Amino acid sequence: MDTLERITRGLDSAVTQCEGPDAPPLLAAAIRHAVFAGGARIRPRLCLAVAAACKEDRPELTDAAATAIELLHCASLVHDDLPCFDDAATRRGSASVHRAFGEPLAVLAGDALIIQAFNTLTCSASEQPERLPALLSIVASAVGSPSGIVAGQAWECEPRVALALYQRAKTGALFAGATMAGAAAAGAEHTSWRILGERIGEAYQVADDIRDAAADPEEMGKPGGRDVALDRPSAARELGLADAVGRFKLLIREALEAIPDCPGAADLKAHMLAEAKRFLPEELSRRAA
Amino acid sequence: MDTLERITRGLDSAVTQCEGPDAPPLLAAAIRHAVFAGGARIRPRLCLAVAAACKEDRPELTDAAATAIELLHCASLVHDDLPCFDDAATRRGSASVHRAFGEPLAVLAGDALIIQAFNTLTCSASEQPERLPALLSIVASAVGSPSGIVAGQAWECEPRVALALYQRAKTGALFAGATMAGAAAAGAEHTSWRILGERIGEAYQVADDIRDAAADPEEMGKPGGRDVALDRPSAARELGLADAVGRFKLLIREALEAIPDCPGAADLKAHMLAEAKRFLPEELSRRAA
Repeated sequence: MDTLERITRGLDSAVTQCEGPDAPPLLAAAIRHAVFAGGARIRPRLCLAVAAACKEDRPELTDAAATAIELLHCASLVHDDLPCFDDAATRRGSASVHRAFGEPLAVLAGDALIIQAFNTLTCSASEQPERLPALLSIVASAVGSPSGIVAGQAWECEPRVALALYQRAKTGALFAGATMAGAAAAGAEHTSWRILGERIGEAYQVADDIRDAAADPEEMGKPGGRDVALDRPSAARELGLADAVGRFKLLIREALEAIPDCPGAADLKAHMLAEAKRFLPEELSRRAA
Repeated sequence: MDTLERITRGLDSAVTQCEGPDAPPLLAAAIRHAVFAGGARIRPRLCLAVAAACKEDRPELTDAAATAIELLHCASLVHDDLPCFDDAATRRGSASVHRAFGEPLAVLAGDALIIQAFNTLTCSASEQPERLPALLSIVASAVGSPSGIVAGQAWECEPRVALALYQRAKTGALFAGATMAGAAAAGAEHTSWRILGERIGEAYQVADDIRDAAADPEEMGKPGGRDVALDRPSAARELGLADAVGRFKLLIREALEAIPDCPGAADLKAHMLAEAKRFLPEELSRRAA
């Protein structure tokens, strides 16, 4: 099975568990919309790539880790799009959840996705729970307070922003969660995988800033120029487009150097280089530089 | 240590974990406000009472279960109070979280509390994870979709409400989670504890309906007459006050009869009778009847 198929199957199984005859039909539909209206699945692909590099021996655990990471990413998008935050009408080229289903169901769908992420991990390890505490703890740290993506989003509500903490929490934390969870699912030591995730996360953020400043909305699946409009920190605004591209390339190099010793290091490196091209297409990289 | 002290200590430890020097200060304050602005702690006390009745042998697990249940209850209150739902200005006699900290931080504080609930369970069982899958699974079912409190709240967004599913999910689910988690934390078989939780939850809901219809706002810590104002199902509206009191008493009797065989059944029965008086004070019961 190819990687994307594996991820889609894991997500579908998790979403199906939230449905069933007893579920409120609109909530079930909102949850499915939140997970299946597009999405590049970057974080779960990273999680699977790391697990493969660590010679995964329990693929059902890897699948659950990748699914949990993506469900939590989807939950954060649904809540970040709410009127009280970005008030985004579109997401991944479709209507945002609150535009399609209303604000109450968007709040609840996000909540249900967070819960289902932890439930998915639990179900996958119920017979052999010895790796479960590490996996849950990695995932909870990546999304909660004080330093996960919820905290990252909350920095936008503070009168003074600790920029490094903000960026690490808002984007880096869940990428680091993806690499560490991939290693932990494979039974490998996981802390040495944090830096790779953080660098990839930072590179992704810089690429997103460049795309926001330089690309057209159709290419991105959401409105461009949002960072300026919402006065958010942006590498493209701070450094200028050309230097932002340089920073992106440096971060990818640092990420490659941060890959810990593991059986599949060469394959993982190739995966990373391919990902870098997806984050920032050559054409856009040239246009920006 | 008395029960309330034990619960407060567990909650404080969980909230403190969300704070620390790296946390966004307003998010940390919103989380603390959500958990410590009042609260009768009915669900965690029920959880502890059941664990005691099952002769708990790992009190740190019971504490974590009780804490997780209450954190999830607090999260649901924060999100239910949002402008897109009840738009409540006060809760437990204090300002609601979105009134005190704004809507974005209320959304995020709720999210962080959900995550911290699962994290708390995880931390308590990291050395001996064999009871962790059951505990996590009980708690996730009690709050998620298709039949936990998130689904219960979502029924309010449906054009047609399945009333029995709505009431069971909105209130019964977390009470059933409290009794089952108490048993599971003590290493006991937990499914036989569901009915007790469901009956107590239903009794609590009926008592809440009676208080909403009959009591004055000061006594309740939140505005009265909300069920009529928000056109929500209410036992007091459907049955009339006198019959609602009768229904409440029947549910308490059924709850007592549903207590499974266990070493501390007599003490648990006494606990339940005391709780019943807290749900619906004698004076109000007489006034309503």
